[in-house]
Amino acid sequence: MSRIESITVTPIAFRDPPLLNAYGVHEAWALRTIIEVYTENGVYGLGESYGDEQTISQLQAVAPALVGMDIFNLNAIRHRIAEVVEQPDPQSGLEIAPGTLGATTVPRIFSAFEVACLDLIGKLTGRPVCDLLGGKVRDSVDYSAYLFYKFERHRFTDDTWVDKWGEALTPEQIVAQAKMMIDEYGFGSIKLKAGVFEPEAEIEALRALKQAFPNHPLRIDPNGGWSVETTKRLLPLFEGGLLQYLEDPSPGKEAMGQVSAATDIPLATNMCVIGTFDLKRAIELDAVQVILSDHHYWGGLRATQDLAAVCKIYDIGLSMHSNSHLGISLMAMTHAAAAIDNLTYACDTHYPWQEEEVIKGGKIKFENGSVRVPDAPGLGVELDREALAVLAENYRTCGIRARDDVKEMQKYQPEWSGKIPRF
Amino acid sequence: MSRIESITVTPIAFRDPPLLNAYGVHEAWALRTIIEVYTENGVYGLGESYGDEQTISQLQAVAPALVGMDIFNLNAIRHRIAEVVEQPDPQSGLEIAPGTLGATTVPRIFSAFEVACLDLIGKLTGRPVCDLLGGKVRDSVDYSAYLFYKFERHRFTDDTWVDKWGEALTPEQIVAQAKMMIDEYGFGSIKLKAGVFEPEAEIEALRALKQAFPNHPLRIDPNGGWSVETTKRLLPLFEGGLLQYLEDPSPGKEAMGQVSAATDIPLATNMCVIGTFDLKRAIELDAVQVILSDHHYWGGLRATQDLAAVCKIYDIGLSMHSNSHLGISLMAMTHAAAAIDNLTYACDTHYPWQEEEVIKGGKIKFENGSVRVPDAPGLGVELDREALAVLAENYRTCGIRARDDVKEMQKYQPEWSGKIPRF
Ligand SMILES: [Mg+2]
Ligand SMILES: [Mg+2]
Repeated sequence: MSRIESITVTPIAFRDPPLLNAYGVHEAWALRTIIEVYTENGVYGLGESYGDEQTISQLQAVAPALVGMDIFNLNAIRHRIAEVVEQPDPQSGLEIAPGTLGATTVPRIFSAFEVACLDLIGKLTGRPVCDLLGGKVRDSVDYSAYLFYKFERHRFTDDTWVDKWGEALTPEQIVAQAKMMIDEYGFGSIKLKAGVFEPEAEIEALRALKQAFPNHPLRIDPNGGWSVETTKRLLPLFEGGLLQYLEDPSPGKEAMGQVSAATDIPLATNMCVIGTFDLKRAIELDAVQVILSDHHYWGGLRATQDLAAVCKIYDIGLSMHSNSHLGISLMAMTHAAAAIDNLTYACDTHYPWQEEEVIKGGKIKFENGSVRVPDAPGLGVELDREALAVLAENYRTCGIRARDDVKEMQKYQPEWSGKIPRF
Repeated sequence: MSRIESITVTPIAFRDPPLLNAYGVHEAWALRTIIEVYTENGVYGLGESYGDEQTISQLQAVAPALVGMDIFNLNAIRHRIAEVVEQPDPQSGLEIAPGTLGATTVPRIFSAFEVACLDLIGKLTGRPVCDLLGGKVRDSVDYSAYLFYKFERHRFTDDTWVDKWGEALTPEQIVAQAKMMIDEYGFGSIKLKAGVFEPEAEIEALRALKQAFPNHPLRIDPNGGWSVETTKRLLPLFEGGLLQYLEDPSPGKEAMGQVSAATDIPLATNMCVIGTFDLKRAIELDAVQVILSDHHYWGGLRATQDLAAVCKIYDIGLSMHSNSHLGISLMAMTHAAAAIDNLTYACDTHYPWQEEEVIKGGKIKFENGSVRVPDAPGLGVELDREALAVLAENYRTCGIRARDDVKEMQKYQPEWSGKIPRF
């Protein structure tokens, strides 16, 4: 009943707007992998992970080694994965997507299967995934409006697709984007992806947002795009409670620790603390006051709970990071966040930026910026196999095999390097 | 199906030998509470906790507030308990039983119900409790021989009962006790409860044990009975690998930190780190290298896993503490230990010191010092209601309402104070 009979790993691609960040610009297609784990009786569980070639090949290499294993014995599954997965240099990988770092290999690959197994366990026991994590402490999970500077459209594709969001290169356009997103989703807090323009120009956008949404907590995330000196110079501009938290202003724990020592504004990170291996040193340095968890690279939903336990002990805030993702990931995040009492910040999500879906019923609905925790068994989502086939065909034809915002930006600005800190 | 219909809280007492320790001597009866949680369909889950009057009254006061709650929503149950339980001064309580400290009230009361709910969830889903904790990483859990100095018999009772273990006041008698216990249980490591006699005399017993059992790792636990100065004086006597770890030589995190700075012998504790509230400071001081977890006061089996996650991050060893207990506790410990990969030391247990049981089939069998992790749903033990009635009658008639080793020792030595450190 609870043995793994087979596993399907399907790379997919879906359209992604030209979103700007410190590294460059999103390409026309975002990659992802859909994992289906089947037990002997034909019940299946779903996972969603990164879609870079390395992750896909690791998922595919590991899958056969898990056949026959008990979906309840997640510890044994993790150990098996650690035995069979090829582990690259811990420092290798794209800095831009923390989950692709070599050091996160086992947690990242395990996470994809853990979520699928928890979905299955939930289905087999008739319980929502949050009940397998100790039960929900809230009925819905808050997400934040995740604003990006962006081009109107991808300029270097043959494709005629244009997203609905329009250009956003000025404070006014950022405010318009926020209005559009908040009108549709009801978000109660706002994050601005920064590190794109001169910091003062981005802080001007923040001020414009504060004026337009005086009651929305604001965050800014330059992705390590500012040096310690630059960040210290900017700190006075954030005074007066402009920010709920300042996310990764400078790159690395040491730099964050130096900034942290110079300000009372909480510093958040999804860059310098991306695994348990980072916690000890970050705590020693008091480098961050908020950790953005991400089950995709922290090692799954229970590992996210472990992180939450550490955050409680050290009085560190907890929120959630996101990359471009679809509804399986959104539901996994929602179940985990629902079961963690000290996850008190609205979570990040790229979800509004995607038009496509892979689950039945299409895009998940938000109410007042929140996703309701489903009572249905498992994650509460089912695979739309027609949609999966379309997105899998996208993957086959889109030509992208690993996210590369730097290379994409060089099409616009040939001298672009994507090196951080730029300012 | 999964709502709590009723809860039964039954105080029990069982015979306890006159075991000596730094505080005094065990009384003739040990107290405990058996918790039965029933769902609407008549299925029940078992918990076992302390039997002091305070714990019993807290368990009884909380129980009605849990009726109607979902056994899967353990987070909600913990929150409810935190709301309704009377929380005494965090510093109040018996130092001798860490679980009775005021600060541990919510975790201690929650733990009793959490274990019962996990037993129930296991029964309802057809899975052993370890599967609800991520699955077993070992098929059996090692326990250690827990040796005590002891009188031959209780001198101040009318009772004619005499335990089978005989007197143990000399190194020879301690070795004989170890032989008897290891012959019967097969334990592969040995712990000597100390703090009773002059430290040098106790270390002589350790040496005698080392000679008789050269391949058995040894531990000694004076329960904070030695001052920092005394412990530092003794450290050279432990050289040459006499000890696997040195447990609570001196009382308190600061004292342990001072000892720790003076030796490479790992220090263990179940006294100065008894809850998440103790971890930050203990880590700061590098006060301990091994934490003895105890789900009864750490807040249950999942909280024990959280502790394990912290221990992994800080490279702190993990073992398990015990008080006088019966088979429900032993099975809860076994399931938790089975699911925690970094619980690599043999766990403590008082189990050999008890002759009575409250579960069907009588005393749980050990093989080579280990308890097999059962595959049966839940904890894998069922209540023997006739035995329960006998032990409950013991409680009613035994006259003891809270453990008091000091008062009991004063019957033998009227000037006894039980204050630590004594040496
Ligand atoms: Mg970020
Ligand atoms: Mg101890």
